[in-house]
Amino acid sequence: MLRPVLTNATIELTREVEVVDERGRVSTIFIPAERPLTVYVDKRELVTLMTLGGAPEALTLGYLRNQRLVRSIEDVASVQVDWSVEAVAVTTRNGIADVEERTSKRVVTTGCGQGSVFGGLMDEVDNIVLPPDARLKQSVLYKIVDSIRTMKSIYKQAGSVHGCALFSSEGELIYFVEDVGRHNAVDAIAGRMWLDDISGHDKVFYSTGRLTSEMVIKGAQMGIPFLLSRSGTTQMGHMVAEKLDMSLLARCTGTHFLLLTGRERLVFEPQLLDGSLRVA
Amino acid sequence: MLRPVLTNATIELTREVEVVDERGRVSTIFIPAERPLTVYVDKRELVTLMTLGGAPEALTLGYLRNQRLVRSIEDVASVQVDWSVEAVAVTTRNGIADVEERTSKRVVTTGCGQGSVFGGLMDEVDNIVLPPDARLKQSVLYKIVDSIRTMKSIYKQAGSVHGCALFSSEGELIYFVEDVGRHNAVDAIAGRMWLDDISGHDKVFYSTGRLTSEMVIKGAQMGIPFLLSRSGTTQMGHMVAEKLDMSLLARCTGTHFLLLTGRERLVFEPQLLDGSLRVA
Repeated sequence: MLRPVLTNATIELTREVEVVDERGRVSTIFIPAERPLTVYVDKRELVTLMTLGGAPEALTLGYLRNQRLVRSIEDVASVQVDWSVEAVAVTTRNGIADVEERTSKRVVTTGCGQGSVFGGLMDEVDNIVLPPDARLKQSVLYKIVDSIRTMKSIYKQAGSVHGCALFSSEGELIYFVEDVGRHNAVDAIAGRMWLDDISGHDKVFYSTGRLTSEMVIKGAQMGIPFLLSRSGTTQMGHMVAEKLDMSLLARCTGTHFLLLTGRERLVFEPQLLDGSLRVA
Repeated sequence: MLRPVLTNATIELTREVEVVDERGRVSTIFIPAERPLTVYVDKRELVTLMTLGGAPEALTLGYLRNQRLVRSIEDVASVQVDWSVEAVAVTTRNGIADVEERTSKRVVTTGCGQGSVFGGLMDEVDNIVLPPDARLKQSVLYKIVDSIRTMKSIYKQAGSVHGCALFSSEGELIYFVEDVGRHNAVDAIAGRMWLDDISGHDKVFYSTGRLTSEMVIKGAQMGIPFLLSRSGTTQMGHMVAEKLDMSLLARCTGTHFLLLTGRERLVFEPQLLDGSLRVA
């Protein structure tokens, strides 16, 4: 497989600032970084993403992938991030066909972080088929929730970021990405899946943020049959998931969850809640 | 003052769906609506906003205002929402000059709900001056936080929405708007301020969501010196607020808050926390 040449750009992800509390006491807290990253494709300015800055190369690739601007990772020759100019230069092997036309339709979405989906993504949903036999065990779901709970994160240090993660069907963590917007986090995961040639059909996706339509569509585009969130969902997220028979699991905390769609995909294990075998 | 002709379109804001919990028990919950609203200005398609749908006319006006596509409410002749086609038709009195050029620069922002800011907003920040003598009393801050806490809301019924509110300097509620994205909520408030010819210079803005750069910029554009949130902020939100000497108050719950910038604007009232006079 042809793999693009990548930078591995790093930059501070938090900043310490002074605060005054309700009693006038001065202290310091950490807040997450938020910075522009302007994406140039074949020297043409495409978009400016506001990002934490933790995974700029994967974010760029995932953005191009999820917007369907580049069809294969092999079409990308290089991704070069330069924080000194807050830009990333992408070079493709064959250019992007009809880039003018394909980026002209603007949809401002519900999501945090990466609101703009170029038109036509909803049309694609009709062509997606998720593996009908994919199943998730309740015990694996609990393993995933617990793994997120105990993870070291920017969120725990500084708050105000969303996290997304990809897990195997056995609940093993594959990726964990945080960003100021959850759409950047999901795009960065899509970028890493592309780079590592990983398919979503037997994976589980976790997000700390809400499962809005755009999140569900992006999950579907990656072929992932399970979307978990500690938060809730919206009517359109629900509708898209129902149409695709994708399992949406909201309000996942401790042993609690609400299964909204794709019910037959969850394998209930009632003995897990029998006290002696309780998972916390 | 010339006021545009407006529809007053209403539509269901929540939907009841069936869920299954961790013990296999079936029940129903409410989830918020999320629907596209395509904005046409003088018959030209401009953008599709994903919205809850609670205040479509104000949202459309506020979007045009905050994107600086229309300079005065008097330039707008009518705003006609038609949910049956998920569209809003805006008619201007004189057209939007250079609309092609002014909507060509795409910035995908951190925010929830309304990610796309057409270019150049940051440049404007340099020209904004907030009233140097505006002050907020600690007791008023507590009144605002308590007012939000006790408000009837879609959030309490269905979760997964953000709320924004505008208060007077005495802590009286002027507007409260919820939307699936907080950027829509802030835009809807900007639209209502325009319609009612209300200035922001002596007002307080409250958001349930994070105070990212875009939220702070929008607050500044409306001339509001105080931004409160129950959530946190980001480095760029902090930087913009600091530059403008705007008061950012994060983590506002009960009697707690963290004052990040514009410190001299807050009037501390230590007696409020003296036990006998305790608030909340």
